[in-house]
Amino acid sequence: MAFLDHIAACNHHDLTKFLPFVVAESQVGWIRHDVARRLAAFPEAFRVIRRQRVELHPALTTPDLRSTMVDAVAVELSRDWGTPRLRGERYRVVRRFGDAPVMSVDRGVVSLFGIRAFGVHVNGLVRRPDGLHLWIGRRAADKSVAPNKLDNMVAGGQPAHLSLQANLLKEAAEEADIAPELAATARPVGVITYCMEDEWGLKPDAMYCYDLELPAHVIPRNTDGELSGFTLMPVAEVAARVRDTDHFKFNVNLVIMDFLIRHGLLSPDSEPDYLEIATGLRQGR
Amino acid sequence: MAFLDHIAACNHHDLTKFLPFVVAESQVGWIRHDVARRLAAFPEAFRVIRRQRVELHPALTTPDLRSTMVDAVAVELSRDWGTPRLRGERYRVVRRFGDAPVMSVDRGVVSLFGIRAFGVHVNGLVRRPDGLHLWIGRRAADKSVAPNKLDNMVAGGQPAHLSLQANLLKEAAEEADIAPELAATARPVGVITYCMEDEWGLKPDAMYCYDLELPAHVIPRNTDGELSGFTLMPVAEVAARVRDTDHFKFNVNLVIMDFLIRHGLLSPDSEPDYLEIATGLRQGR
Repeated sequence: MAFLDHIAACNHHDLTKFLPFVVAESQVGWIRHDVARRLAAFPEAFRVIRRQRVELHPALTTPDLRSTMVDAVAVELSRDWGTPRLRGERYRVVRRFGDAPVMSVDRGVVSLFGIRAFGVHVNGLVRRPDGLHLWIGRRAADKSVAPNKLDNMVAGGQPAHLSLQANLLKEAAEEADIAPELAATARPVGVITYCMEDEWGLKPDAMYCYDLELPAHVIPRNTDGELSGFTLMPVAEVAARVRDTDHFKFNVNLVIMDFLIRHGLLSPDSEPDYLEIATGLRQGR
Repeated sequence: MAFLDHIAACNHHDLTKFLPFVVAESQVGWIRHDVARRLAAFPEAFRVIRRQRVELHPALTTPDLRSTMVDAVAVELSRDWGTPRLRGERYRVVRRFGDAPVMSVDRGVVSLFGIRAFGVHVNGLVRRPDGLHLWIGRRAADKSVAPNKLDNMVAGGQPAHLSLQANLLKEAAEEADIAPELAATARPVGVITYCMEDEWGLKPDAMYCYDLELPAHVIPRNTDGELSGFTLMPVAEVAARVRDTDHFKFNVNLVIMDFLIRHGLLSPDSEPDYLEIATGLRQGR
């Protein structure tokens, strides 16, 4: 394996299999051709313009109307066709982050409509006399995505109603029992984009990255069952595991590669893929 | 002005005006159609395949043969047609950084052949009780590119025969009188790519970025005449000048925007262009 393999894995997709999904004259997602054919059975909700695009019906003029209609169709599709079920967590649908949402969708069908997902990822770092360490979480065995894989100290999808900072404080408390005063010292350090296909659609994702330096006496402790534990790992070991193994959740590899670059732990003189790694971490929009 | 305007300015180009430049079966550059027509007059050096590509003649089988032939043509073009003169500094021509060079070209004709240029840019930072500051250079009035504009503390194109690290030490000594022991503590923190047209061709550029923390008592001092002086500037002032003005050299704006992002000085919750800035800094390859 090599660092670049993780970037390739996270960007595995073929856009020719998808149609743009347009809401209020802006593209906000991607819908696979076979899904689009099913959506054509709901003309009150979707206008499928063959080989061109799928539009949400323009008579749906408010975010609430749109969200309610898409939810109703998603429930039917799930029942009749086995697409993912609603999970009860709302994601905002935006032309770009920070814009007023044109609607919201349930987390379960984000990839069915190819909506860009947003999330926060927090590198928990400790500067010890023997060098830089990272707090690494292990995902619970019952997670539907990447069970038992290694993860950032704190990470979470971005709910519709929170700022990134508020989401970070919430996730830091739930996932690692980190006090809000400490979590609030986390520093935003960039954003990683990638785009991959999943079973039902496309997942363009933007991961907002933060560095949070922890005092030596703070030991993260999971409170919500999402992680089975934490390990304080020397950064060289983290780097080796990312480079050589699939121990980490697929997209967390990218967050750590960005960390290694920003902290001078990869050398552009000795890492032949340095340029491709740096550019590859932000190719997916 | 806005941050994104600088990214747009550095990526102003139209690739339909160019043909790929191929050496030893790899594309290493871009040549404008009008230049390609001139090169067709030198069939011992170039094979111009109309509307497709310009190849260096395959009989030129070694880097030395290739470099000598291209130099000779470049001298004739400059004399007869006014293209840029040779400057006596060699740039390596590589498929990608770190590969064995397929040839070298003179710095003066890098854009004529659309060769990717590489350089190092060093953010000189000082952590003071009143906050983070950056040492900002002012370019000399007689510079051919961007005279009198503000610049990074240390920056320089990448000569063919040096590592990035060795070039950084050399430039830090020449441009800012920084001792090699201190310069060697500079941390590589990433690479920025962009691609712009200039008067004669295309300039795809990769800027390898470094952060160098300076003790308060170290005052940079220019020794090679490239800079007219240095100012220690609060980082908020640097950010405002980048956002609102053209005081900085065009591509240095991008290096500083990357610095602001990595150091948490832009907030993804309040900067609406955050995602576009982060991805835009690495679009140009």
